[in-house]
Amino acid sequence: MPTVSFRISAKKTIDVKVETGERLMDIARNSGIYIDAPCSGNGTCGKCRVQILSGDTESHPCRHITDEDYAAGWRLACETRVIGDVTVLVPEPASAFRTGIRTADLNDPTVRAAFDDVQRDLREAGVMDDPTIFTCELTMDPPTLEDTLCDCDRIERAVRAETGMEARVTLYTLRKLARVLRDNDFHVRCVLARDGDGVRIVDVGSMKSKKKICGLAIDIGTTTVTAALVDMETGELLVKASAGNSQIRYGADVINRIIESSREGGRERLRRAVVEDTIVPLVGTLCRKARVYQKQIYRVCIAGNTTMSHLLLGLYADPVRMEPFIPSFFQCHELRLADVLPELHPEAGLILTPNVGSYVGGDITSGLLASTLWNRDELALFIDLGTNGEIVLGNSEFLFTCACSAGPAFEGGDISCGMRATNGAIEEVKIDKETMDPTLTVIGPEGQKPIGLCGSGIIDTVAELFRGGIISAKGKFAREGRRVKYDEHGMGRYVLAFADESDDGREISVNEVDLDNFIRAKGAIFSAILLMLRQLGMEPEDLSHIQIAGGIGGGIDFPNAITIGIFPDLPLEKFSYIGNSSLSGAYAILLSRQAEEKVRELSSAMTYVELSNEPGYMDEFVSACFLPHTNRELFPSVEV
Amino acid sequence: MPTVSFRISAKKTIDVKVETGERLMDIARNSGIYIDAPCSGNGTCGKCRVQILSGDTESHPCRHITDEDYAAGWRLACETRVIGDVTVLVPEPASAFRTGIRTADLNDPTVRAAFDDVQRDLREAGVMDDPTIFTCELTMDPPTLEDTLCDCDRIERAVRAETGMEARVTLYTLRKLARVLRDNDFHVRCVLARDGDGVRIVDVGSMKSKKKICGLAIDIGTTTVTAALVDMETGELLVKASAGNSQIRYGADVINRIIESSREGGRERLRRAVVEDTIVPLVGTLCRKARVYQKQIYRVCIAGNTTMSHLLLGLYADPVRMEPFIPSFFQCHELRLADVLPELHPEAGLILTPNVGSYVGGDITSGLLASTLWNRDELALFIDLGTNGEIVLGNSEFLFTCACSAGPAFEGGDISCGMRATNGAIEEVKIDKETMDPTLTVIGPEGQKPIGLCGSGIIDTVAELFRGGIISAKGKFAREGRRVKYDEHGMGRYVLAFADESDDGREISVNEVDLDNFIRAKGAIFSAILLMLRQLGMEPEDLSHIQIAGGIGGGIDFPNAITIGIFPDLPLEKFSYIGNSSLSGAYAILLSRQAEEKVRELSSAMTYVELSNEPGYMDEFVSACFLPHTNRELFPSVEV
Repeated sequence: MPTVSFRISAKKTIDVKVETGERLMDIARNSGIYIDAPCSGNGTCGKCRVQILSGDTESHPCRHITDEDYAAGWRLACETRVIGDVTVLVPEPASAFRTGIRTADLNDPTVRAAFDDVQRDLREAGVMDDPTIFTCELTMDPPTLEDTLCDCDRIERAVRAETGMEARVTLYTLRKLARVLRDNDFHVRCVLARDGDGVRIVDVGSMKSKKKICGLAIDIGTTTVTAALVDMETGELLVKASAGNSQIRYGADVINRIIESSREGGRERLRRAVVEDTIVPLVGTLCRKARVYQKQIYRVCIAGNTTMSHLLLGLYADPVRMEPFIPSFFQCHELRLADVLPELHPEAGLILTPNVGSYVGGDITSGLLASTLWNRDELALFIDLGTNGEIVLGNSEFLFTCACSAGPAFEGGDISCGMRATNGAIEEVKIDKETMDPTLTVIGPEGQKPIGLCGSGIIDTVAELFRGGIISAKGKFAREGRRVKYDEHGMGRYVLAFADESDDGREISVNEVDLDNFIRAKGAIFSAILLMLRQLGMEPEDLSHIQIAGGIGGGIDFPNAITIGIFPDLPLEKFSYIGNSSLSGAYAILLSRQAEEKVRELSSAMTYVELSNEPGYMDEFVSACFLPHTNRELFPSVEV
Repeated sequence: MPTVSFRISAKKTIDVKVETGERLMDIARNSGIYIDAPCSGNGTCGKCRVQILSGDTESHPCRHITDEDYAAGWRLACETRVIGDVTVLVPEPASAFRTGIRTADLNDPTVRAAFDDVQRDLREAGVMDDPTIFTCELTMDPPTLEDTLCDCDRIERAVRAETGMEARVTLYTLRKLARVLRDNDFHVRCVLARDGDGVRIVDVGSMKSKKKICGLAIDIGTTTVTAALVDMETGELLVKASAGNSQIRYGADVINRIIESSREGGRERLRRAVVEDTIVPLVGTLCRKARVYQKQIYRVCIAGNTTMSHLLLGLYADPVRMEPFIPSFFQCHELRLADVLPELHPEAGLILTPNVGSYVGGDITSGLLASTLWNRDELALFIDLGTNGEIVLGNSEFLFTCACSAGPAFEGGDISCGMRATNGAIEEVKIDKETMDPTLTVIGPEGQKPIGLCGSGIIDTVAELFRGGIISAKGKFAREGRRVKYDEHGMGRYVLAFADESDDGREISVNEVDLDNFIRAKGAIFSAILLMLRQLGMEPEDLSHIQIAGGIGGGIDFPNAITIGIFPDLPLEKFSYIGNSSLSGAYAILLSRQAEEKVRELSSAMTYVELSNEPGYMDEFVSACFLPHTNRELFPSVEV
């Protein structure tokens, strides 16, 4: 059996015994070695580059690898089979999908403001007044030979007297109850979780205990998972963190993930990737930061798209991607956290925000809740620019929703130098019209050099290139200069940072393939907006408001977004950026039963429109694949 | 570090590295080596005999070991400490508490008849008409682009249409749902568990599946655990088996178990002993016998006394044994089988029959249900002769209950040659008045030699010894003969089987200590009966019926039991033996929601009488410690 030595870093080499003929990609996956593969190993994305330092492999030249690189041993791991002993250099994971955990700076002004605004709007909408978890202090008479009520009935009676609600002791509480009551002379503090008309006594402890009672809101994005640890008594956000979704190694988009999940053992692989490799370490980081134990988390609310929620629960997801696109569930009522995240408190409640269809999931219902669009009479639009874009059009009377296959461009995927909005991501770009030199704003500490481009940086770049005449309306390069380069096939690219200007010594640029991907993504969004409006006999002018959500970086530059035709050409005051609305909604549902009821109500009220069934959709899409649009009359304010 | 070599059998030796000075008993327990210790290792019962074959130990002579045996290396494991390398012979576990699993012969006429009678009485009492688990066959329209209901809502709708009840899919079902529906063209069979006013869809499978839908009733006795596997659709008893409760290694009675459980790590040790070492192998045996998978068990009902249910759940049990004797719980509503027996079906329901007090537990409420005493107008008595005796006096109007510390004599404990009612147990004894030779009936296959005495055998022996004048009314030997022996201290014993007549080459006899233990046990029962009656201003004559339950062997010889004064001297037709009523009740609750409601109702209606608080109890007890009683007027029919 040949041995493959994977050189992960200067310090780390992993040796694996393999069968002759095995694919490097499969070997790496089975050995827990991370190689980026947005296309799930189909040979189409070209991201799984590795360098064969020595040994025999079977492979062939392809369009993703230049002749020069091929000669130097660079191969795609998904197209390379092992013949004999091999030493393989695994480069740093493609910067697009670094999976390190980033604890958010809660003072990040744009994100924080968006988050606070959402919570204020929800309070004003009257859905934050019914807490899900609370504590109560009890003083009971100790039992005597005359008063022989058992401990369980005694504390239930005391809680009933204190709260006026029926109470039930949980097994976790029962296991410690006798000791805690007697160690504290029957004066205790207990943690209560609302359940139906009553409460469950989920924990009991000393009156002196100052232990925080926590909850956890999680947004499981296809690309990024973000979690917030919350003080359930004050509603305070204690700490927030995000990490790449480790499922990314099985594909960048939901389709590739589903395909992988339907292979032998795939459901369990995908489930573990998001639970054990992503959420568990993320929660560990949050708890360390906030100095709380995981057992102090008494309720969890998770929002994710339909595929993410299916893979999280270990469900068959194949029907989600195959006509007629039927998910296993919209709402799940019988969930126990212990079955999904057994590491946390065994009695903690788990809420998954409801799905509406195969491509409008719990992230959108949660985000819609956060938008409070449902609380206003005027027609408005809610758009989530995540991996794919989802749109809700409506008001307090009706709600229409659709998904458009925009791909992950707005989250930094599908773009050669794209990355998540984390340290090293370029989030703002200005380009001098004369010199064509860029001015970059990079996420991270003072002096942080750039690593790649996040969503907001991509929008700025495309807009500035277009505005400066550096690219045409079709996304082709039209000028020459120090920062505009062409490869041997004549493909142009714009260099935002030369190798010596970047953090990792690799050039950061945007090429014509990136531009093409981006323009098709924005075309999908715009044509979906137009189609949804016109189905109701309306035009963009009828919109009172457009709310944009998504983890695209430090906000969005709306003039730029309009310039390149992502959104309709409306007055700027009609736009607002509400940040990660999926997480904001989950945060609200975590804290409030009314919010939970509201999100269930909203999901039932939403009408799902399958765009691909609509006549004229393809034409609209093709027309929108221009900067800003084939029909310039739609963009009177754009002067490029 | 010294090494202790435990010789378990000719083939099996276990070597353990230990610290100098460690007790052999602790070493054995920590290494999973079974040494009998009814007194929990306090040096009082003398059952933990081992033989030191070589090596240095620290010990001292004691009353449980003759000088001859001491010289031969026999020691009590609980009183022996290791000094250097030691080789220890561990004898076969004392026959009283062999833990092998015995699958009951369902044709055993007495036991089977008692069981069938109970089920018939319960049907007649009208509490068996509301099944807890049932299946239903569904034919659904497959989804289309026009009918995009998710799988979960689709099957819930179909179940609602079929049964008229609200339905909820469980996570276990959801995980397989998409595949099962599509593999079977949306024609499926599902398993439904009643829950509140609706049903939970706990499983789904092919319409062609002939998989049995099973349930499990378990009686956790202090000495013996018995379980029955039931076909939930037909109510048929598929197979029944019993095994010794492995907690016995931590003590023969509940008090010693509680003491052990309150030591460091004790709760977990006791929980594991009953779950992993007793119930799990028992269930494995049942499933193999019936050829079903454990995942086919959809509901479990467990009956056990208050201590057993506390130790099963891993609760603190100390307050149960200490004044004012307060258990953690009477009824537990928030139980999931997955938290208690994770090896079985993750969605299976678990019912624990309710406790009434620290010494009247779920075995009695379950047994009372089975007795149907609560369904009759006439005053009657229900007595469970388990480890300890519990009594319920009442009718359809009222129910009084008490416990008496009879000890495990009726289950074969506290008796030197006692054993559970399993193969090799002497269950019937006749003694010739002239020759004093016994005629024995032994449980087991044709030709089975005796190993020890079970409860019914002990009752027979004492009655026959008393009737033959071989012992006095005080339980002292009064005659001489081949079968009556005296040791060097003058203590007499009656030999039921000489060494060469027994299965394991050890003499089977009843000595004066055994008789004393037995007489005190029966005295506790009788005095409790009398006290309960007199508190209500009644006499034994007012009883219409006395029902005896307990695993004492193949029924009970009532003339014998009256002769030695266990029960009041009433006409024989007033007595009946109803077998293991705790298991019978659990079986009913397993199958029927009405039975579950009824047992909860009964437990709330029962008035618990603490005998030790009652004036005159000690006097009554002392008077009853005679054969048949100090006051012979109470036993006019006894002519001995």
